Amino acid sequence: MDDGADLVSTLHKERTDLLDEIMGGTEETTTGVIRLRAMASKGVLRYPIIAVNDAMTKHLFDNRYGTGQSTIDGIVRATNTLLAGRVLVVAGYGWCSRGIALRARGMGAQVVVTEVDPLRALEAVMDGFRVLPMMEAARIGDIFVTSTGDINVIDGPHLEVMRDGAILANSGHFNVEVNIPALEAMAVEKQRIRDYVDQYTMPDGRRISLLGEGRLINLAAAEGHPASVMDMSFANQALCAEHIAKNAGNLHNDVYSVPEEIDKEVARLKLHAMGITIDTLTPEQKRYLESWEEGT
Amino acid sequence: MDDGADLVSTLHKERTDLLDEIMGGTEETTTGVIRLRAMASKGVLRYPIIAVNDAMTKHLFDNRYGTGQSTIDGIVRATNTLLAGRVLVVAGYGWCSRGIALRARGMGAQVVVTEVDPLRALEAVMDGFRVLPMMEAARIGDIFVTSTGDINVIDGPHLEVMRDGAILANSGHFNVEVNIPALEAMAVEKQRIRDYVDQYTMPDGRRISLLGEGRLINLAAAEGHPASVMDMSFANQALCAEHIAKNAGNLHNDVYSVPEEIDKEVARLKLHAMGITIDTLTPEQKRYLESWEEGT
Amino acid sequence: MDDGADLVSTLHKERTDLLDEIMGGTEETTTGVIRLRAMASKGVLRYPIIAVNDAMTKHLFDNRYGTGQSTIDGIVRATNTLLAGRVLVVAGYGWCSRGIALRARGMGAQVVVTEVDPLRALEAVMDGFRVLPMMEAARIGDIFVTSTGDINVIDGPHLEVMRDGAILANSGHFNVEVNIPALEAMAVEKQRIRDYVDQYTMPDGRRISLLGEGRLINLAAAEGHPASVMDMSFANQALCAEHIAKNAGNLHNDVYSVPEEIDKEVARLKLHAMGITIDTLTPEQKRYLESWEEGT
Amino acid sequence: MDDGADLVSTLHKERTDLLDEIMGGTEETTTGVIRLRAMASKGVLRYPIIAVNDAMTKHLFDNRYGTGQSTIDGIVRATNTLLAGRVLVVAGYGWCSRGIALRARGMGAQVVVTEVDPLRALEAVMDGFRVLPMMEAARIGDIFVTSTGDINVIDGPHLEVMRDGAILANSGHFNVEVNIPALEAMAVEKQRIRDYVDQYTMPDGRRISLLGEGRLINLAAAEGHPASVMDMSFANQALCAEHIAKNAGNLHNDVYSVPEEIDKEVARLKLHAMGITIDTLTPEQKRYLESWEEGT
Repeated sequence: MDDGADLVSTLHKERTDLLDEIMGGTEETTTGVIRLRAMASKGVLRYPIIAVNDAMTKHLFDNRYGTGQSTIDGIVRATNTLLAGRVLVVAGYGWCSRGIALRARGMGAQVVVTEVDPLRALEAVMDGFRVLPMMEAARIGDIFVTSTGDINVIDGPHLEVMRDGAILANSGHFNVEVNIPALEAMAVEKQRIRDYVDQYTMPDGRRISLLGEGRLINLAAAEGHPASVMDMSFANQALCAEHIAKNAGNLHNDVYSVPEEIDKEVARLKLHAMGITIDTLTPEQKRYLESWEEGT
Repeated sequence: MDDGADLVSTLHKERTDLLDEIMGGTEETTTGVIRLRAMASKGVLRYPIIAVNDAMTKHLFDNRYGTGQSTIDGIVRATNTLLAGRVLVVAGYGWCSRGIALRARGMGAQVVVTEVDPLRALEAVMDGFRVLPMMEAARIGDIFVTSTGDINVIDGPHLEVMRDGAILANSGHFNVEVNIPALEAMAVEKQRIRDYVDQYTMPDGRRISLLGEGRLINLAAAEGHPASVMDMSFANQALCAEHIAKNAGNLHNDVYSVPEEIDKEVARLKLHAMGITIDTLTPEQKRYLESWEEGT
Repeated sequence: MDDGADLVSTLHKERTDLLDEIMGGTEETTTGVIRLRAMASKGVLRYPIIAVNDAMTKHLFDNRYGTGQSTIDGIVRATNTLLAGRVLVVAGYGWCSRGIALRARGMGAQVVVTEVDPLRALEAVMDGFRVLPMMEAARIGDIFVTSTGDINVIDGPHLEVMRDGAILANSGHFNVEVNIPALEAMAVEKQRIRDYVDQYTMPDGRRISLLGEGRLINLAAAEGHPASVMDMSFANQALCAEHIAKNAGNLHNDVYSVPEEIDKEVARLKLHAMGITIDTLTPEQKRYLESWEEGT
Repeated sequence: MDDGADLVSTLHKERTDLLDEIMGGTEETTTGVIRLRAMASKGVLRYPIIAVNDAMTKHLFDNRYGTGQSTIDGIVRATNTLLAGRVLVVAGYGWCSRGIALRARGMGAQVVVTEVDPLRALEAVMDGFRVLPMMEAARIGDIFVTSTGDINVIDGPHLEVMRDGAILANSGHFNVEVNIPALEAMAVEKQRIRDYVDQYTMPDGRRISLLGEGRLINLAAAEGHPASVMDMSFANQALCAEHIAKNAGNLHNDVYSVPEEIDKEVARLKLHAMGITIDTLTPEQKRYLESWEEGT
């Protein structure tokens, strides 16, 4: 069970002697899946992998509801600032960032979204968010949260126009979403004013605070995702491991999706654990759907 | 340009003489796409089709935001009832039904969702909705809206336990989601109390109102989707027709997705029309994403 | 039972002969109450009045939830425009206007609030709305709704900077909140493009649509408040009439509040009608509250 | 400047020698104001008090937005549990409790409200919350938050029917809202499973967790209200002290409201500090309002 393809990488580079013994593996993260697909497409992957990250019961929940809550939690623990009435800028509108946007709005913030993808930008608009280029958002934001997976989303020119008191937090994969070297270079003073809060003073006196040194704020200042959302990831891991054990002979050295039946079973188990019952199709309803799909 | 595969059906059955002249076609609806895929998989489809319905700029917007608003509009026009504080039961949590659930909550209703798919049910739960089997929801609902694509979602046993004054509306594809024959059979009296409102009186005196004879309430009692959301569907239609004309020689007799570039172009045009500007990736950000995806 | 103090006015001016027979009256509207208090403070009011408008079960519900829903209803019926993603400017943040702001947000609009009162403006900010002076809001709004009780809230200079396609609706007391004479004077053309929609073309080609000739949009284009919210006003009317009949001897020629017990009784009856049960204080809890209030 | 009338109490009981020197005082809390009004009505209050707690810029903001956020913060810090999809029961629907209900919904919880006041209960219903008696809410809640100001709101019989894993938190004034002695008496085991979390095991195996020993959860497990909301309370304190100093001669030994002008000035200062500009009435609008109020 891998997290970020680190284990795969080590096995393929340093311990190739072990590869023959391995029936298969699973991968938890988006990052790892991207790398593993690249390996598979180059034909260098030496055992089958199930991309647990891509399970609906993983990324639809962990990324959206988990990251949403824990990012707000990290920012509040780090700063104890009131979110109500503040302009909170979320960079990105993927699953993580829309979780953050939703929860920030839920706490009373006035949320602004920035995006590079027109489809996601349009969804953000239709969801009632204000969508702006970062250069404009930078001028009006009180709190900024990056969650794009790219670098320098908050860059020098943005830092130059921010308001006094602006707060920067990152909830993407690495501490590269805010251009911290640029911030360090621009500042005339840097002071740790609270745990997890570095306040940089610009030459013109404006103060900008960077939370958790730009690392994932929910891990830096809070406790990461709640167990009550990680349970679904881990259920996928366990059931996928079982699936590999049972089907080893039929799997190629490729990256596989989580079987839909496992995905649905995890959802079923989670609902059951929460004490929630749902409907099932009647035989009549099944027949109708099937006949319909057959076009008869 | 087809809506429900009716044109395709006629051409393949009654006017096969015209088939040789046809370069390709487009399809607007989920229903039509399901039928066309069945035809393609049986090898009987005689010209290529682009499934406009599956464009993100179509189903993510038209289904969710269009149906959401127009369903509420239809119910309010038909009944002029206050939604705030009422228990509104939405059957289904697909794109249309989550649009309805979201907007009903936005009008102050206490929304209950019913589902047969555990994944969708779990999303509804995490989105803060109460999820119940229809048999329980039937006992507490003030207003019911079906949008599942299946039959008898509200069936005899549900009708038997509903509260006096319950209101039934359908926003799915046909007037089969509520078992109207059962309702007719159970009622001792039927009265049109307002345009689009048929009030059925049960033997025990309870009154249940069916809106718009169970047909799509946004078409029956309101004006269907606003032009300002249909524009995206039609832009897809136009650009896909152009795409077929330009690529006729390379297309097989199959059902094609809308090319991603057309989908994004429609989003771009819509944002432009709304006066919204978004960011573009810098060369540095593009390089980072690409190198990352390559795993270097 | 008066609405706008019209009956009182007629009686005091034209039919003073009837005044001696009158035990008391009730008044439904804010407008009427303002006028009646002025009459009482000048000592010219000739019989006691109960200000039904000031009952919590009236203005907290009718103004907020009733006006909120019916204003949205009126705008959608008049225009059939999609609210999601549009910038909707609400002038005022009193009970009516906050109902409109809440419901507009619930339909997916990006809501901007304008106010003259700093307290209300601050509440709007903390509720997550963007607060701007009208001069700035005028430049970015797609839809404008006035509900302030004052005149020319949307005035010539605002009309001059609005975007092409802007829509104006009024939900305040009279058709004076938008400066219609200014709009008429500025326009080079006026065309009724739909029922209740007059499109004015400005000399520079911009088109501005005025809904329902600036009269209350929920009455002009929809059906006013739903019966399911007016029921509370009318229950107050009935119970206050009874109160006057029973207490006529003890009432002075003044404007009285609705007795708190009547107000609570109306709430109790409404909850009962909706099938909702609530807690009651235990004897222990009553004693605790009383002893606490006594500071012992 | 008093908090809970403790200083007043000491001065009136133990240090009456100092009373003659005192020009006046201020009081920060609801609790204190209740006690002081009781003293004033008995004629024993020996100097004038301004009830800062009753300033709109205090209780509308501090209680609602401050308590709302900090209660959620306290619960999440104490438990790190995911709120999305959980049934969160809020006891009470006063300013504090509606802040909690609003923010809990904003975090994706399914919120249930309990009340004893029919008016507040009805507002909760119209705001889209499910309203239940505590005895029913107790059976379905995952998380309970009390904020009523009364005792034993969660009492023995409620504890007996709660689900395994239920979490109890208090955000009212004292640790009496949950009947902790009853909980202690019922439990067969008590274990501190995390900081601020005492897990009680019932004879039937159900586990119930009490947070922060039932004391105010935002103080027990978090950092109390953010400075960015307390600033308004303190601005009221400062300006009221000035007001007392300037008007000492004219004040009686009574409890006074914060002068409206101070209240508005605090709102004005806060808006200014947040960089927000609002409209002012034009001379024409002032005249209109005045003439209107005069009924001419």
